[in-house]
Amino acid sequence: MEISDVFQAKKRLSKVIHKIPLEKSSRFSDITGGKVYLKCENRQLTGSFKVRGAYNKIAKLKQNGSITDVIASSAGNHAQGVAFAAKKNGIEATIVMPRSTPIAKISATENYGAKVILFGDCYDDAHTKAVEIQKETGAVFIEPFDDEDIIAGQATVGLEIIDELEDADVIFVPAGGGGLLAGVAKTVKSLKPSVKIIGVQAEKADAVCRSFALKKHTSLDSIFTIADGIAVKNPGELTFSIIKDYVDGMVTVSDEEIASAIIELIERTKQIVEPAGAAALAAALNGRYDISGKNAVCLLSGGNIDVGFIHKIIEKGLIGRGRELNLAVVMRDVPGGLSRISGIIGEENANIVSVRYDRASAELHLNEVILHITCEVGGHGHTVRLLNKISEAGYRLM
Amino acid sequence: MEISDVFQAKKRLSKVIHKIPLEKSSRFSDITGGKVYLKCENRQLTGSFKVRGAYNKIAKLKQNGSITDVIASSAGNHAQGVAFAAKKNGIEATIVMPRSTPIAKISATENYGAKVILFGDCYDDAHTKAVEIQKETGAVFIEPFDDEDIIAGQATVGLEIIDELEDADVIFVPAGGGGLLAGVAKTVKSLKPSVKIIGVQAEKADAVCRSFALKKHTSLDSIFTIADGIAVKNPGELTFSIIKDYVDGMVTVSDEEIASAIIELIERTKQIVEPAGAAALAAALNGRYDISGKNAVCLLSGGNIDVGFIHKIIEKGLIGRGRELNLAVVMRDVPGGLSRISGIIGEENANIVSVRYDRASAELHLNEVILHITCEVGGHGHTVRLLNKISEAGYRLM
Repeated sequence: MEISDVFQAKKRLSKVIHKIPLEKSSRFSDITGGKVYLKCENRQLTGSFKVRGAYNKIAKLKQNGSITDVIASSAGNHAQGVAFAAKKNGIEATIVMPRSTPIAKISATENYGAKVILFGDCYDDAHTKAVEIQKETGAVFIEPFDDEDIIAGQATVGLEIIDELEDADVIFVPAGGGGLLAGVAKTVKSLKPSVKIIGVQAEKADAVCRSFALKKHTSLDSIFTIADGIAVKNPGELTFSIIKDYVDGMVTVSDEEIASAIIELIERTKQIVEPAGAAALAAALNGRYDISGKNAVCLLSGGNIDVGFIHKIIEKGLIGRGRELNLAVVMRDVPGGLSRISGIIGEENANIVSVRYDRASAELHLNEVILHITCEVGGHGHTVRLLNKISEAGYRLM
Repeated sequence: MEISDVFQAKKRLSKVIHKIPLEKSSRFSDITGGKVYLKCENRQLTGSFKVRGAYNKIAKLKQNGSITDVIASSAGNHAQGVAFAAKKNGIEATIVMPRSTPIAKISATENYGAKVILFGDCYDDAHTKAVEIQKETGAVFIEPFDDEDIIAGQATVGLEIIDELEDADVIFVPAGGGGLLAGVAKTVKSLKPSVKIIGVQAEKADAVCRSFALKKHTSLDSIFTIADGIAVKNPGELTFSIIKDYVDGMVTVSDEEIASAIIELIERTKQIVEPAGAAALAAALNGRYDISGKNAVCLLSGGNIDVGFIHKIIEKGLIGRGRELNLAVVMRDVPGGLSRISGIIGEENANIVSVRYDRASAELHLNEVILHITCEVGGHGHTVRLLNKISEAGYRLM
């Protein structure tokens, strides 16, 4: 991929995609001591940057000759990107998705007019099926990342960042297959070599990090992360050959750090991102690369998260921040028992959300019962006050 | 309030507040048959439009003479607006908040440098205390809505909308005390009389609607809504005198419609709003005013929602959309019972999240048990298939 390809991609995309200005965050700047800007591709058309590469690829194919059908396999954002790009170019699209794909993503892809085939248990099964169908139909296969035109499309994100923030110092970019990172790195380093490009992966899906450290393309046998958008066992060969030459550093973040960044984004910037979309910010907030005194851009790559999953992340986050408290109290199994303990909790202004009795535990005397109580509290200080009150009243906490 | 006051407010605010471009939503346009634009004041500084009025008021006071202290009472966005505006103008702020105010809102207000006093059980108690303190200290009291300069500040939202979308046809504006609605209505109708202004309230907090219908200022004894930002018993006298002359219609939305609009905004636009901030969109989506073929703007007034509350709204929303299923199955109380029923559920690809045994119900035979099972499902179609499978296997559903 040459820089001229990126400028051509920019031209193809100019009237199609959303132009979303960088957002400066004073809160995240305070935490890091730098100036933090967010590149909000979570609010991009189709909910992620993936539409850029898919559109560039398909529009270029159409410019260069006759094309009537495309096919792709994806459980996520690439599906919606290809479906949208095909529709805009008047081309039929078939997308093979694993059976486990959430209904919301299936219907979003169908709503763009694509034909969705559900097949197999995982991405690899769906991919095999798509290759099979491609051989029968002769449709053009649209790769998710390891393709010059896809990389050039994703690279336009980098172009927009340095156009808008001329004195950018650092850009954090999430990486799975490496298309976005490769495109942004080569573009930015070619036009502005002083800008540092930091790639970010999930701790347990760090194939690009390992490849970067070993200076050699490396795959993983198994991966495990909530960040499905960057959960890739086998990064691109082409993308890695660019990444190793143009990226300044690779770092990882844990699933807990990603979940916490998602909640910070909700509370502070009123935005929803998917887990992969929070990885870059998580790296900045947790000091994986020092940005104090620097202008740093965190690339929020996508926003397609299932509401049920947000629900779970918030639940975990509330417990982690001391906003939900699970406690187990031993009390005598007599009338009025619950009334007394719930009275103490109520007086301390904590809101009980569930109560469960356990009379069967081996550690109990016959006239004792364990009460498992979940309540909403104001934070860690509130929790400590509440637990002290319960202990002072003579209850045994387990 | 005259239109010249609004232009002066615009000038005062120009270098302070975020200028957030209107966002067009193709999804909401499809649903309504109009062209729907969102005015995203949820992403405004301090998380709501309230900062506009507070800043205009305090900056004007400072222009006109010496002022060193302000005081206000608020459980919500007005607190953060006043705290921020005071800090920017180098003035001390005291905010009285009810004890029940969520910790997150208290610390956000304190982070802007304001002194927070917690007092009483509700807004009225806090207000009484604030008036008392004002008499002692002589600080200037900053009203939340019934004030010319506050209204002129909020009115700048209307100015921005018609500046950016010259052919706007309808603007939906949420109303509690009425400051935003009064300001936007008078400004827009004075400059562009063809634009229809529709005020939106919560069903059970509809004092402005009633006043509008009766053509007479009316208060309510009690209100009940999840939309705390527009839960006002006694709207402003001044605001109502403007509303009755300049607003075209008043409509209400239910709490369920508000909750559903919050989830739609998360899924479709990757944005978080507070319940009051979703009211305008809820009115448009539920056809309270016909916008087919029209350019309609929904004003998302604020985004300050507790993550714990989002959690509850999503939970309710998931059940309402058939994504979480609570079922009660009667089975024989024998070894292997749970294994058989959970096998059927697993085969149908539904994910069990909790199981509870009930052996004590009066309707049961001695050898029967009720299993209360909660599971995640794909939607209503999936639910029907699952329930059919369970019935076909001979189980009794309750």
